Amino acid sequence: MGMSSEKMKIILIGAGNLATRLALALQAKGLAPEWVYSRTEESSRRLSEQLPHSHYTTRLDSLPTDGDLYIFAVKDSVLPQLLSAMPANAGLWVHTAGSVDREVFRPYTNRYGVFYPMQTFSKERAVDFDDIPFFIEANSEADTARLHDLAARLSGKVYRADSEQRKYLHLAAVFACNFTNHLYALCDRILQEHNLPFEAMLPLIRETAAKVADMSPFDAQTGPAIRYDQNIIAKQEALLTDPTMREIYTLLSRSIHETHNPDKPKES
Amino acid sequence: MGMSSEKMKIILIGAGNLATRLALALQAKGLAPEWVYSRTEESSRRLSEQLPHSHYTTRLDSLPTDGDLYIFAVKDSVLPQLLSAMPANAGLWVHTAGSVDREVFRPYTNRYGVFYPMQTFSKERAVDFDDIPFFIEANSEADTARLHDLAARLSGKVYRADSEQRKYLHLAAVFACNFTNHLYALCDRILQEHNLPFEAMLPLIRETAAKVADMSPFDAQTGPAIRYDQNIIAKQEALLTDPTMREIYTLLSRSIHETHNPDKPKES
Repeated sequence: MGMSSEKMKIILIGAGNLATRLALALQAKGLAPEWVYSRTEESSRRLSEQLPHSHYTTRLDSLPTDGDLYIFAVKDSVLPQLLSAMPANAGLWVHTAGSVDREVFRPYTNRYGVFYPMQTFSKERAVDFDDIPFFIEANSEADTARLHDLAARLSGKVYRADSEQRKYLHLAAVFACNFTNHLYALCDRILQEHNLPFEAMLPLIRETAAKVADMSPFDAQTGPAIRYDQNIIAKQEALLTDPTMREIYTLLSRSIHETHNPDKPKES
Repeated sequence: MGMSSEKMKIILIGAGNLATRLALALQAKGLAPEWVYSRTEESSRRLSEQLPHSHYTTRLDSLPTDGDLYIFAVKDSVLPQLLSAMPANAGLWVHTAGSVDREVFRPYTNRYGVFYPMQTFSKERAVDFDDIPFFIEANSEADTARLHDLAARLSGKVYRADSEQRKYLHLAAVFACNFTNHLYALCDRILQEHNLPFEAMLPLIRETAAKVADMSPFDAQTGPAIRYDQNIIAKQEALLTDPTMREIYTLLSRSIHETHNPDKPKES
């Protein structure tokens, strides 16, 4: 089967944040998905409307079976049930998840792989795909090469990673993105409670993120915990009335201290 | 005493990261400190060498007493002992700390205030002061206006904040910067242990930081914890062999879940 990424027939399963941003990025490269499946009519139609000439459906058995590439961009937890309901076909099936093993496909099809763009996606916010690292793998060298080609049309950063490495990438990304964003949210909560503008925090947030492009995060560490200024640590803990936030403050301060003083016995 | 910021005689006490970046920023505006004090000859000389025409000393009693502005940019913990050893003078004394009350100066001088640039500083990395929010206060309206003038020469973002508000700003900044950077460091540790490049994480880090300029961090939250995907949460916890990192993973996941489900009873 001759499948160059230039004239690939792409079927997209999913219409969430990632599916939406990926579909629009593919379309911008002349690779718009021809079909969109979603569980609900509303979300499949909403995405399909942004992709002229595309079709949408809420029934897997309505999807064409002559697709070149079936992209499953859905929640990890619903993937197995979708796969078991998919009509058999000879296309290449890929998912876009960080923590799902490639072999999830094995019971259902012969050609499969992973097409994982490591980024945080919101429906409302466009992201520059050229800057997004793609981690790809497939169960044959030919399909790995095809996915590499396709990813390289979207992004300047394409890596091969097996399922084991991808698990750790995703875990690392949870720290760098999801947990980091939650710290921003806690910061916002503190500011709101004291009528201070979150906007004033943006330069600090930007610089903290920019700094680690120039130096390792270990070397970039600043603040009371690395100085182990127990006076201010105690004062700041006392300002936090929410028990979970205080727990986070205490634990992260201790972790910073441990990281920078690996040999010292733990003080309490 | 006529003190316009255009011809202010500035004395700098401290030669650490913040003192260094602030001195260079002042110099760029034609306001280079004329004297630099530091506890060690090496650090006072190193900074003074970057400020042509400046003097340096390791003795507080060698500092001139006709300064207009004495900037104490030192660790919170050493400030009181420095203040008690300062020769009396009629200048305006300010510190640059987030969590130190303005009244720390009261026993030692009549004119005092705070000049707090909310940013993370490293000696090796230049930062654009124009983008740094300055929070200022003083014990007289005239000196508050002087500090406002001076800050406005360095930055486009000058706010008045009393010591109570500043404490919470600093606490919020610890979450948004110091703790965030530590999460980057933990991310780096995971990647290093699996021979994956930290560089691949930079677009995600950048986008996570950029996103909250457009939407609230609450709305920007993504990832397994907000979906409360317990399957993947359990799998990721199991990947973490370091007990402190696992504790952090569990606590932050719970906090994200609680934040987005304030009314639900806690699941375990």
